[in-house]
Amino acid sequence: MKKYIIGDPIPTEAVVADIPSEKAFPPIGTSALKENSYTLVLPLSKDAVVYGLGESPRGMNKRGWEYISYNCDDPMQTESRRGLYGSHNFLIADQEKPVGLFIDTPGKVRFDIGYTKRNELSIESPKDVAVYVIEGDSPQDIAHNFRKIIGKSYIPPKFAFGYGQSRWGYKSEEDLRNVADELERHQIPCDMIYMDIDYMQGYKDFTVNESRFPDFPAFVEEMKKRHIHLVPIIDAGVKKEEGYPVYEEGVEKGYFVKEKDQETDFVGAVWPGYALLPDFLNPEARAWFGEQYRVLTDAGIDAFWNDMNEPALFYSEKGLHELTEYLRSFIEDPDSGNVHELEMKVAGLNNSPEDFRRFYHRYNGKTYVNEDVHNLYGFNMTRGAAEAFDHLRPDLRTLIFSRSSYIGMHRYAGIWTGDNKSWFSHIKLLLSQLPGLNMAGFLYTGADLGGFTEDTTPDLLARFIQLGVFTPLMRNHSAILTRDQEPYQFENVEELAHLIQVRYRLLPYLYSEYLKAALNDEMMFRPLSFEFRDDPEAREVDDQLLLGDEVMIAPVYEQNKNHRYVYLPEEMIKVAFKPDGSIEEERLAKGHHYIEYPLDEIVFFIRKGKAIPVAAPAMNVDEVKSDDLLLIGDTGTYQLYEDDGIHQKSPVTKRILKK
Amino acid sequence: MKKYIIGDPIPTEAVVADIPSEKAFPPIGTSALKENSYTLVLPLSKDAVVYGLGESPRGMNKRGWEYISYNCDDPMQTESRRGLYGSHNFLIADQEKPVGLFIDTPGKVRFDIGYTKRNELSIESPKDVAVYVIEGDSPQDIAHNFRKIIGKSYIPPKFAFGYGQSRWGYKSEEDLRNVADELERHQIPCDMIYMDIDYMQGYKDFTVNESRFPDFPAFVEEMKKRHIHLVPIIDAGVKKEEGYPVYEEGVEKGYFVKEKDQETDFVGAVWPGYALLPDFLNPEARAWFGEQYRVLTDAGIDAFWNDMNEPALFYSEKGLHELTEYLRSFIEDPDSGNVHELEMKVAGLNNSPEDFRRFYHRYNGKTYVNEDVHNLYGFNMTRGAAEAFDHLRPDLRTLIFSRSSYIGMHRYAGIWTGDNKSWFSHIKLLLSQLPGLNMAGFLYTGADLGGFTEDTTPDLLARFIQLGVFTPLMRNHSAILTRDQEPYQFENVEELAHLIQVRYRLLPYLYSEYLKAALNDEMMFRPLSFEFRDDPEAREVDDQLLLGDEVMIAPVYEQNKNHRYVYLPEEMIKVAFKPDGSIEEERLAKGHHYIEYPLDEIVFFIRKGKAIPVAAPAMNVDEVKSDDLLLIGDTGTYQLYEDDGIHQKSPVTKRILKK
Repeated sequence: MKKYIIGDPIPTEAVVADIPSEKAFPPIGTSALKENSYTLVLPLSKDAVVYGLGESPRGMNKRGWEYISYNCDDPMQTESRRGLYGSHNFLIADQEKPVGLFIDTPGKVRFDIGYTKRNELSIESPKDVAVYVIEGDSPQDIAHNFRKIIGKSYIPPKFAFGYGQSRWGYKSEEDLRNVADELERHQIPCDMIYMDIDYMQGYKDFTVNESRFPDFPAFVEEMKKRHIHLVPIIDAGVKKEEGYPVYEEGVEKGYFVKEKDQETDFVGAVWPGYALLPDFLNPEARAWFGEQYRVLTDAGIDAFWNDMNEPALFYSEKGLHELTEYLRSFIEDPDSGNVHELEMKVAGLNNSPEDFRRFYHRYNGKTYVNEDVHNLYGFNMTRGAAEAFDHLRPDLRTLIFSRSSYIGMHRYAGIWTGDNKSWFSHIKLLLSQLPGLNMAGFLYTGADLGGFTEDTTPDLLARFIQLGVFTPLMRNHSAILTRDQEPYQFENVEELAHLIQVRYRLLPYLYSEYLKAALNDEMMFRPLSFEFRDDPEAREVDDQLLLGDEVMIAPVYEQNKNHRYVYLPEEMIKVAFKPDGSIEEERLAKGHHYIEYPLDEIVFFIRKGKAIPVAAPAMNVDEVKSDDLLLIGDTGTYQLYEDDGIHQKSPVTKRILKK
Repeated sequence: MKKYIIGDPIPTEAVVADIPSEKAFPPIGTSALKENSYTLVLPLSKDAVVYGLGESPRGMNKRGWEYISYNCDDPMQTESRRGLYGSHNFLIADQEKPVGLFIDTPGKVRFDIGYTKRNELSIESPKDVAVYVIEGDSPQDIAHNFRKIIGKSYIPPKFAFGYGQSRWGYKSEEDLRNVADELERHQIPCDMIYMDIDYMQGYKDFTVNESRFPDFPAFVEEMKKRHIHLVPIIDAGVKKEEGYPVYEEGVEKGYFVKEKDQETDFVGAVWPGYALLPDFLNPEARAWFGEQYRVLTDAGIDAFWNDMNEPALFYSEKGLHELTEYLRSFIEDPDSGNVHELEMKVAGLNNSPEDFRRFYHRYNGKTYVNEDVHNLYGFNMTRGAAEAFDHLRPDLRTLIFSRSSYIGMHRYAGIWTGDNKSWFSHIKLLLSQLPGLNMAGFLYTGADLGGFTEDTTPDLLARFIQLGVFTPLMRNHSAILTRDQEPYQFENVEELAHLIQVRYRLLPYLYSEYLKAALNDEMMFRPLSFEFRDDPEAREVDDQLLLGDEVMIAPVYEQNKNHRYVYLPEEMIKVAFKPDGSIEEERLAKGHHYIEYPLDEIVFFIRKGKAIPVAAPAMNVDEVKSDDLLLIGDTGTYQLYEDDGIHQKSPVTKRILKK
């Protein structure tokens, strides 16, 4: 493994290992330098499969599309998108001699993976860039070698593996208590209830609305007694408001990003209206912002989600003023005006590329325009929080995950896949994202089950949950003004409750597999081809995944389907968790199968010679007992990893279970 | 079969048969009248499948979603959409006693098909409505009975079954000639080249840009010698411009839709800027507009597509003036303004619901606000053209298809499915739409192959074409500023040429099946369950279709997949048209199969005991010879329907071919 340094790359802190580097083009493919860019072109064989690029859109095999790494808050996660909230510039070209590439730059990178020319992978980055060439015997080996150099993945507290209920629109103690009550009433296990932006006072970070939460610490405590952790959201933008201490202190200390003159604070706008962006790339500012979480940790909060940190910008003060000038001229003679241009200009306020050229960071002793270090912003916001927790909550693990990210942030936190939609196709999207995220170190991850924007349906929610029971982050989240999406809103609440209950029975296995993946630098979710190297049929499968060494999952992601085709690359045991609490097992031969997958069951497969532990039913993670585990699957042993799930340095025990 | 009249329904002319009617609620389900609406609720059995609703989004089985019939130009054809460009209010609930329902009203209708309550179909319409209850022994029988009462489907000229090349952006003779040359150079058969909005002078209907087409009739003739029919677009809106005869005459005669005062012409805006909408619901206005096509038929044009006839409205004069007032107040203090509201107001100009309450039609001797008769607009625009062709091109068939439609328009024209996307999921969308459209009488139909908006990929185009070779309308169309999409733009042009060549070999069969479906009131494309009534596996298949009585199609609609699962409800013969021109046949047993479907082949299935004719290769429809047909498939006979493909009243011959 080697690092090739082209020009004078901006450091990212993605890689922590000290590995040999050379000031030269990488010795594979064809490199070329242009005035403003570096390109690396690698031939792809006809049958090459390309894996990676983290949470980026489209299939597990990234071939046939182009991707752009440039973190962006755009909730239209369609097939046409080039990228999403995080930039994870690691990929593996799986061909005769498989190779891994990590393009390490905080700037924009374009990956043309057989989009322009079918048999060519072409990467275009800023002209100063570090390229890591990661070798290995197999894609799995390459992914492992890459993980070794980027540092160990974040391990959250164990409660973070429970079910979380969220919705944009919960406003008060009463709202949240009602959610807890309804979940309990319907026997839906739960460990977390999320607090979206409405808990704050005027969308001001580190405030809690005092009329709607008259005694917040008492309420946190009340919920904790019910085994429920409240998870408040923290947004990147700090409201511009005289008298608001976070704003005033940040201004005074010069901790916000600046305009070109390096003096004027750049004024953007997000939920609170005009807001300033802390310069998370500056270690002092980052530490200062992290310190603010104390308001909430002091109130007993032990879990957070960081949002709007691409950063998202609804508009900027300058952008709005420029638009105002445009509007002024438009209204002089609207009948002759270019209405299409008007529409574009107004819509273009949102996350305008121009705005990302308007503000500057202090980073590594230098000044950088955001555009050049853009992809590091969310990473460093979240890192700042994680570093603060080390003294705000010493020795304890804190749940923290972020929307935006860059490789390196996986050491500090998890991510969720952002604002997805209530679409069946987004079940498959999540399935496709998991291996790419795991390769990039992101293990604590999941999607908004049921879909964030648009209206869900009860069967869509069930299908989402049938995949979500396996993802470390299991959260049902939805946007305001969409159809209510808590399981108890639907006729089939009992079915949904059963599905979520199964999650808790699988928890010892899932937590153990998470620990293994984190501690051993392995992927928790792998494409079939990573294991079954010589099986051409396994290689084409893009809607099934291996989970650990024992399990294969194959969720349904189409409406009105109660069956799906599943390919078994070897003999396996089909497992079905039935609504009556029983577990049905059936041995199936290698090959293609047409499998029944009802809405009210959890169905998956255990590999030949493997067994997994199943716990007794529980209503929260604290209740899950690991001393009396049932082993299901084939005759075999299972090595269970355990720790206390609470402390940073809890020792890990490894226990062999036999069936 | 019976018609139930609730209140005083606005006639639509969808149904042409004189069938018994009763002033009563239909004798099925539960009817209820509210102040402004009528609702009909029908229980659905657990396993009921609901088919129909024409081109509406989502799967073939409409269950689990709600749909709204209200024709709209919105190119985001995602899973969340409730409806598209046409309203086709016919559905079949396939349960123990299958039943067909046609909700006949030109106003908005909401179909909640197990969306709110899983086992309930709930229909909400305006309070004056005609409900047809269509009975039959099976869904197929019901569809046939419905087709019998709505009149025979349109039959286009035979050349319309060839391949058509289109792109928004062709501007001149040279552009179009270049397309013809490139197609020819790459041996891509072609019968039609489309002329999108740029052929006009300032987007004025019935004008041809004189500098870019200095001698248009000569150019039409030149193309016709190459067997290429030019297909100009006609938009609904007429540019408001002094001196433009269509505008001036329409104003003078009062043929445009009016504001509430019934005097002022309603001013909308589309491509040409401010434009007036002909009142197609008024027979005189409709006939007058139809007469305008003479400018183009006199130049030799024999094919048209009618667009923007939902109607699409970019904005209205009044709406823009109201917005201007809003902008005026906004700019007074932008920093305190509600920017989200500004964005909504500007974006809301487009197809504003308010605008559809601002203009009025004269229809059946009465005055109606557009909202109440909204879904009839595109129907009557296209009907006006078709009626004019009867004397502009007497005895001859003219190709005409429309974007917007209502049931009834199928007697006059075809439709295309509007502005789809370059998404793999839209291949499946087209597949799902075909049976619903056929039930509603629309046989001449197809989607923009390769996808209209967004960037295509060469493999996506190939997969689209692999379905498109079977759809009567086979057109590659794309939007300006997207990736070039003609087959010759890609490395795999030879593969794409081969796929299109296969269309011409299948043409005698496709045309014959089209004639059968049109003349016998049958569906050309049917769900498997329509034929295999007692097969529960066939009932769940939603990505395969029967074509006629002989063929089953099962296209690939996912990227990086060279295989797919196919269910054979009986023994069938798999047919593959290979790139070398050979045809491979293989007999497969009833059951589930994992089928190879390479990018450069056309693969489909012929049913047991059936055979289909295949023609020799040809470069255009005129060249397709039907006197020396090869029969492929099983031992059996095929009844070939033929006519001259040119004349309205060409006699149909029926020839038995034996294998």
